Amino acid sequence: MSVVVGIDLGGTGLRAGLVAPDGKMSSTRSFEHGGLRNPVDAIEAIVRAVEAVACGVKVDAVGIGVAAWVEKATGFVARAPNLGWVDVPFGELLERRLGVPVVVHNDLKAIAWGEYRFGAGVGADTLLVVFLGTGVGSAIVAGSTLWTGARGFGGEIGHVKSGPDDGPLCGCGRRGCLEAYVGGGALARRAAELRAKGRLKSITGAGDVTALDLERAAMHGDPDARVLLEQGGDLLGRSLGAVINVLNPDVLLLGGGVWFASQYVRDAVREGIDYASHPFLRKSVRIVESALGPTAGVAGAADLARRKVAAP
Amino acid sequence: MSVVVGIDLGGTGLRAGLVAPDGKMSSTRSFEHGGLRNPVDAIEAIVRAVEAVACGVKVDAVGIGVAAWVEKATGFVARAPNLGWVDVPFGELLERRLGVPVVVHNDLKAIAWGEYRFGAGVGADTLLVVFLGTGVGSAIVAGSTLWTGARGFGGEIGHVKSGPDDGPLCGCGRRGCLEAYVGGGALARRAAELRAKGRLKSITGAGDVTALDLERAAMHGDPDARVLLEQGGDLLGRSLGAVINVLNPDVLLLGGGVWFASQYVRDAVREGIDYASHPFLRKSVRIVESALGPTAGVAGAADLARRKVAAP
Repeated sequence: MSVVVGIDLGGTGLRAGLVAPDGKMSSTRSFEHGGLRNPVDAIEAIVRAVEAVACGVKVDAVGIGVAAWVEKATGFVARAPNLGWVDVPFGELLERRLGVPVVVHNDLKAIAWGEYRFGAGVGADTLLVVFLGTGVGSAIVAGSTLWTGARGFGGEIGHVKSGPDDGPLCGCGRRGCLEAYVGGGALARRAAELRAKGRLKSITGAGDVTALDLERAAMHGDPDARVLLEQGGDLLGRSLGAVINVLNPDVLLLGGGVWFASQYVRDAVREGIDYASHPFLRKSVRIVESALGPTAGVAGAADLARRKVAAP
Repeated sequence: MSVVVGIDLGGTGLRAGLVAPDGKMSSTRSFEHGGLRNPVDAIEAIVRAVEAVACGVKVDAVGIGVAAWVEKATGFVARAPNLGWVDVPFGELLERRLGVPVVVHNDLKAIAWGEYRFGAGVGADTLLVVFLGTGVGSAIVAGSTLWTGARGFGGEIGHVKSGPDDGPLCGCGRRGCLEAYVGGGALARRAAELRAKGRLKSITGAGDVTALDLERAAMHGDPDARVLLEQGGDLLGRSLGAVINVLNPDVLLLGGGVWFASQYVRDAVREGIDYASHPFLRKSVRIVESALGPTAGVAGAADLARRKVAAP
């Protein structure tokens, strides 16, 4: 039996685990890295994390999910806006440094695969997974295969244009992307703008405003907080409605910090889906929530790596 | 070598052909049926068409593309708004009547498969096909497989909600579907409404206004005609931009009567795509036009049937 480590490398944190074939983790580590803008630093952080969770056992393969546009098969990172990387042969560099087979996927692809294999997506024919974290990530599993599209960038709705040209700025450099409205980072930026204008007074403290801060403020009657959450949820829901029409999934799986933090977001997402999707397609899809939470990406990345080394 | 007939059954016309393995047609028939609202009439029309193109040769299989939501594998028509059918076991009925293996697909799936196998989609990794005819049809071929989704209804953008709740009525019964803005039927309905208000005066004649009528009127300076074409094209383009983001296709193939009739529509579609898709995904996709035109569906349906009888 192969010993496989899974890694979830996000824009601000890293999580690693030694993952059994059934998805269970016998050893895990997670830490905030505060932004690994140099890929070499990321590689060294991954090497240390692999050593830490392996506890001296020889590792046969490493699977990584990274918040990036990753080319299929090669593990080449074409763009990682949240890490600041452009054109990094990440898979190749890592494989050389670690000396074992390495599989690199977009983080949401690893998460979707984890939920499909071990979580709330088990048994789905056509699974659409959407995580509302710092950003808006999504991925598709259909017929037991991760959707990649032609280059590997398929499956993502975060950068669908949802607002006008003078809409909020997205981490990708454009304005009006869905992620610029409903990701946790976007909510924090938009809240900061409102606070600078003397609004959102019920939220105190100096740090970034979280979705949970906004949820509490909205519950206590702050209309600005409610509008931020509901507008973001509505835009996401309408985009999901359109995607449901096009993909005809049987399961839509939702998760991530913002999703679980805000009832206003959840209600608006569901209403947006009902509004935008055709009733005939809408009734074919079951909406479920993430079962694995923050460990889905680690489990999925490890399983994808295990398949690579097990393949004939 | 199997003798295979392909059929394209649309809302108003039927086209049949005896199709060789290379997609070439040695014998074809096409006629307007004026709306086969009884499936039994459709079956008899198909039987006659098969006999006509077979010219006495024994047929081994028949493939059909029909303007309908067709369940995968079974050929069960769940809904065919343009024909007025609901819950018709069409594949089963046809197979019993014809006495040979029958494969039924949605018409756009047959068209997309035809273009993928024999037309402008040959060699595509991830192909998105959109035909602007009476309605707006689309389908996806990825990794040499037609995208079906969980029940078989996937691949379609025509009923994505693109306008408000009081937007134009769609053939599916909802308001604001994309198809209610840019399909040929929708353009005719919207033009008729304007003419009833004394607008579009440059268009004379009593029949339905076509996309070509509108194109000519727009070219001669009629602002209403131009708005109809450009609004429809823009909404389609923006929806396609979103789908390009989600699917990461390498080829987008466009065709159909309205597409070829109107430069205003074509320009607006391209601008809408550029607006809504992320530049990073946009540059991965090549936009091409249908090579097979109205025979794509016949060729595709026949090839899908040939594969079924050839499969081990």
